[in-house]
Amino acid sequence: MNAPLRIALAGLGTVGGGVAKILAANGAALGKRAGRALEIVAVLERNEQKKRGFPVSLWIDDPIAFAGTDADVVVELIGGEDGPALTLVEAALKAGRHVVTANKALLARHGAHLAQLAEQHGCALKFEAAVAGGIPIIKSLRENLIGYGVNGVRGILNGTCNYILTQMESTSRSFAEVLKDAQRLGYAEADPTLDIGGGDTAHKLALLAALAFGTAPALDAIPVEGIAHITPVDIAFAREFGFRIKLLGIAKKTPQGIDQRVQPAMVRAGTPLGDVDGAFNAVVADAGPAGPYFFEGRGAGEAPTANAVIADLLDIARGDIGFAFGIPAGELITLPPAPVGSAVSAFYLRFQVLDVPGVLAEIAGKLAEWRVSIESMIQRGRAPSEAVAIVMITHETTHESVARALKTIASSDKVLEPPCMIPMEAG
Amino acid sequence: MNAPLRIALAGLGTVGGGVAKILAANGAALGKRAGRALEIVAVLERNEQKKRGFPVSLWIDDPIAFAGTDADVVVELIGGEDGPALTLVEAALKAGRHVVTANKALLARHGAHLAQLAEQHGCALKFEAAVAGGIPIIKSLRENLIGYGVNGVRGILNGTCNYILTQMESTSRSFAEVLKDAQRLGYAEADPTLDIGGGDTAHKLALLAALAFGTAPALDAIPVEGIAHITPVDIAFAREFGFRIKLLGIAKKTPQGIDQRVQPAMVRAGTPLGDVDGAFNAVVADAGPAGPYFFEGRGAGEAPTANAVIADLLDIARGDIGFAFGIPAGELITLPPAPVGSAVSAFYLRFQVLDVPGVLAEIAGKLAEWRVSIESMIQRGRAPSEAVAIVMITHETTHESVARALKTIASSDKVLEPPCMIPMEAG
Repeated sequence: MNAPLRIALAGLGTVGGGVAKILAANGAALGKRAGRALEIVAVLERNEQKKRGFPVSLWIDDPIAFAGTDADVVVELIGGEDGPALTLVEAALKAGRHVVTANKALLARHGAHLAQLAEQHGCALKFEAAVAGGIPIIKSLRENLIGYGVNGVRGILNGTCNYILTQMESTSRSFAEVLKDAQRLGYAEADPTLDIGGGDTAHKLALLAALAFGTAPALDAIPVEGIAHITPVDIAFAREFGFRIKLLGIAKKTPQGIDQRVQPAMVRAGTPLGDVDGAFNAVVADAGPAGPYFFEGRGAGEAPTANAVIADLLDIARGDIGFAFGIPAGELITLPPAPVGSAVSAFYLRFQVLDVPGVLAEIAGKLAEWRVSIESMIQRGRAPSEAVAIVMITHETTHESVARALKTIASSDKVLEPPCMIPMEAG
Repeated sequence: MNAPLRIALAGLGTVGGGVAKILAANGAALGKRAGRALEIVAVLERNEQKKRGFPVSLWIDDPIAFAGTDADVVVELIGGEDGPALTLVEAALKAGRHVVTANKALLARHGAHLAQLAEQHGCALKFEAAVAGGIPIIKSLRENLIGYGVNGVRGILNGTCNYILTQMESTSRSFAEVLKDAQRLGYAEADPTLDIGGGDTAHKLALLAALAFGTAPALDAIPVEGIAHITPVDIAFAREFGFRIKLLGIAKKTPQGIDQRVQPAMVRAGTPLGDVDGAFNAVVADAGPAGPYFFEGRGAGEAPTANAVIADLLDIARGDIGFAFGIPAGELITLPPAPVGSAVSAFYLRFQVLDVPGVLAEIAGKLAEWRVSIESMIQRGRAPSEAVAIVMITHETTHESVARALKTIASSDKVLEPPCMIPMEAG
């Protein structure tokens, strides 16, 4: 048996606590897999409550000091894209320590730099837990879907958003009401901005795109739209057309460049992504002739995330260091983003209009001016001189054409609210 | 850059040809991932046609002689559970060569022995391509789903069967007709026995169960039922109840032992497995608190299978040898199989009966004798003194109870055919 792998665990929160519990319960079996024992030798934690009963002799409560811990690997579970997490990871790598992290924000922002640092010092930088803990998508992109390259990756990457959208669908309640419930039940944070605004999905998408395309993570190149403006009305119309609204992270190679965005989209029910319910996450990777690969699993929570950290630790214990993004950091390229608005898809459009003669003709005419053609339409009920909804599904067109057409339509005095536009995406 | 990885490729058929094409098209990028080049130095192939234009100087057409090839890794794509494939793999490992194989039959039969041999000689034995090429399930079970252990794994593991069942559903044609078409279209072999009889699924299940539970592959412990007896009538009734018929490989830990079997099952439409169409494969792994992990992808064909071989080669090139089944071969245990018939599920039952008074009472009475209780029933139409179908869904019960009740029911002179029984399984 080789020397134990000495682990310095930065953070005993949900995930860190889960990692410690797995090692306590299942450490012997994991040691057989690794050919060596796994030992937590130091823990960074300020909260006295959490320390109680934890069998480790070295407690450190300062992240900077913690970087000096003598260990083989540092597990960073502090969070945050800068500050102590960055300081700790940089210091650990420079000291020749492997790093395992669940910190998607840190890597989306500093991934290429940290990967470079890891290589310079012969260290691993692993982050399976950073994206969809209950899906081995990082390892699969890095080590399996490599024969033909990956042309596109898209997914439901935020469990909170998918939970809220699923609940809105099943209860017909508003976003605000469902969010409040989700917070009460622990499915959403007290400050839910990063989840519902799409920022968390963007962090994860930046990492998936980097692994899929061999690019440096490019968070700033991702336009982000959240779900706060999605209404039960749109969810109900979507269902009528056979679609469900999902917050997707999308990255695909197109002739115009990388089309990369976080956006609520209409996904056909009955497709793999269209049927993902509740807090689950899912990813589709298009690997050319090898076909679509679909993965679904829990997105967050103690067990799946802690399991992902353990998987990374086992790789390191077995001596599998590898490159953080599958290729040498110096080879990570930057691909030009597709011009804003150049993405092509069909669209769901909803107009709240005055039920007066000529309103449909006016909308249809303005869409036609931008060469947006209509595949199907619902206008239900009559309420002369009052507000009614006109809902349309368009044929495929550029996002820009639709946006421009809608801008002119919105300026009509017969149109009562800013029109709703949601692209249709493959599920 | 390190020395190239020298590959001896045994077989230039669909998969071997695909591997060679990937290395030709994408070898430089793969070399960057591996930190070394990948080179095919020798090929085993008898067919002169296939050799044409292939840029390798060493051709060998005898599998025994091929085992002596000087290479770092032998890729075994000969097939067959014994004979030249076994001879070659044994000889390669004994000579200290790593082995990558797509041969599920070989490993289901000799997996523990070959894993032991690989360890003794410090070699890798990798087989991602052996099960569901378009799903990285071997690596995921071996290296990711390890924190909490896996309690059960089930899947659609044979694309031919799933294609046939999907076609039977969409066209209402018989098994025999659809099989003939599938053969014509290349979705089924000229001799389809191994696919439609469930043997191929059993080979794959034996490997998944070994990885999931840390057991030696135990092919003979798997009862196998194929799909040749499935009728369009049962598929149509299944749909009426909201189910689809799928050939599943199932392995789960139960208090009575390992419940392991290959069997057509009713799977609820709208669940991940229930919605897998055509030649796709899918796997669900239950990893305790880390939740269900679901994977779907192409099951066979050149590109996904060749990609899986490439992924194994890359691991070896990067120096990731590991244990074939994730743990040392000496630690692989044998778990007792659950007693035959002890598995518990609800059942779909169909009886072809004479439409005469008392027939339902007789069936219901005999089911009750074996404590099989009925959840719902369809008896459609009337045809006095002629044949009608009675279809029932039972509550959960043991397979044995249902089998015994059906045996007594089948002996009734009012029951015209052996009753059909299909268990309901989670999707």
